[in-house]
Amino acid sequence: MTLENLQLPLATMLDLASGDMDPYALVVERRLSHMAEAYHDRAAVTAAAGEDPVIYRAYEADVPHEASQLVYRMTIIEPGRIGDEFYMTKGHHHVVDSGEFYLGTAGTGAVVMQTRSGEVRVEEMPPGRAVYVPPGWAHRSVNVGTEPFVFLAVFFGNAGHDYASIERDGFAVRVLADGDGYRVG
Amino acid sequence: MTLENLQLPLATMLDLASGDMDPYALVVERRLSHMAEAYHDRAAVTAAAGEDPVIYRAYEADVPHEASQLVYRMTIIEPGRIGDEFYMTKGHHHVVDSGEFYLGTAGTGAVVMQTRSGEVRVEEMPPGRAVYVPPGWAHRSVNVGTEPFVFLAVFFGNAGHDYASIERDGFAVRVLADGDGYRVG
Repeated sequence: MTLENLQLPLATMLDLASGDMDPYALVVERRLSHMAEAYHDRAAVTAAAGEDPVIYRAYEADVPHEASQLVYRMTIIEPGRIGDEFYMTKGHHHVVDSGEFYLGTAGTGAVVMQTRSGEVRVEEMPPGRAVYVPPGWAHRSVNVGTEPFVFLAVFFGNAGHDYASIERDGFAVRVLADGDGYRVG
Repeated sequence: MTLENLQLPLATMLDLASGDMDPYALVVERRLSHMAEAYHDRAAVTAAAGEDPVIYRAYEADVPHEASQLVYRMTIIEPGRIGDEFYMTKGHHHVVDSGEFYLGTAGTGAVVMQTRSGEVRVEEMPPGRAVYVPPGWAHRSVNVGTEPFVFLAVFFGNAGHDYASIERDGFAVRVLADGDGYRVG
């Protein structure tokens, strides 16, 4: 390997409280219009469509999307609801089945996980709680609190994102407002 | 996949300040006697051999050491020196070249990285600084401060640890005490 194509180490400041990453290589911003089909209350989706709120942002470090690499992201899900359903990520399977590491760093959130055969698990992710999503489990993160929910994710560079199957079939459960808390329904 | 061999999600509390993990599957404890050859001041090694201090501990979560998995660890390097050389990890290459994600969470440390062709980089890892070790770079962490140095590591389940080449050849640089700070020599 020559110096010219030598992959150098990367150093990145992560603000675990706010989710800021410096430097970052790309930011993914999802508004309601990018994932309107995810929410079950169609009238609430229509009512919020004009404002088209930002649901979440994800900052990603400059790591190649290739085998043998580990990509890392900081994701910030804003607090809010569409009807009785909390702001959440689109959710996806990996194209190449592989594990993903999550660490809650601020706010109050949970991760919904589901296998292709329909097994479902929901794990809370308060600051300091790591959740390991094994290979084969789709995953969606949800902000069940009133502050931004921030978490770190580390995943395989060649994992890919299969959003289509979740867009088509959804998850078997929803995370819904219930008084000051939430319920899985 | 039947329910009996379905790999379930794992949730683990990480104390980013102290390095505690709950639950953990295994703990690696390294004393001076496990890595006496790593330090260049042989008289200082001999002088400390009786006490045989714990240099570092690593707590690992219950993730299979297999392809497609991500293993995570919290490592605590105690503050201290052997002669003018700071307490540090043994350091290793991966058997299967693959990236590793580091995040400093407490204390003052650095990571020394080196390719097989002899390129060297040293990155500081204060709390909140992520360092990405690309595939092919050996890595060793060093506590250059006066408090325990704590960091999170995430790596491929099949990465393996090749300690032998570092035990034989060492790193091209050492991290040495220099007044209240350190120098790379």
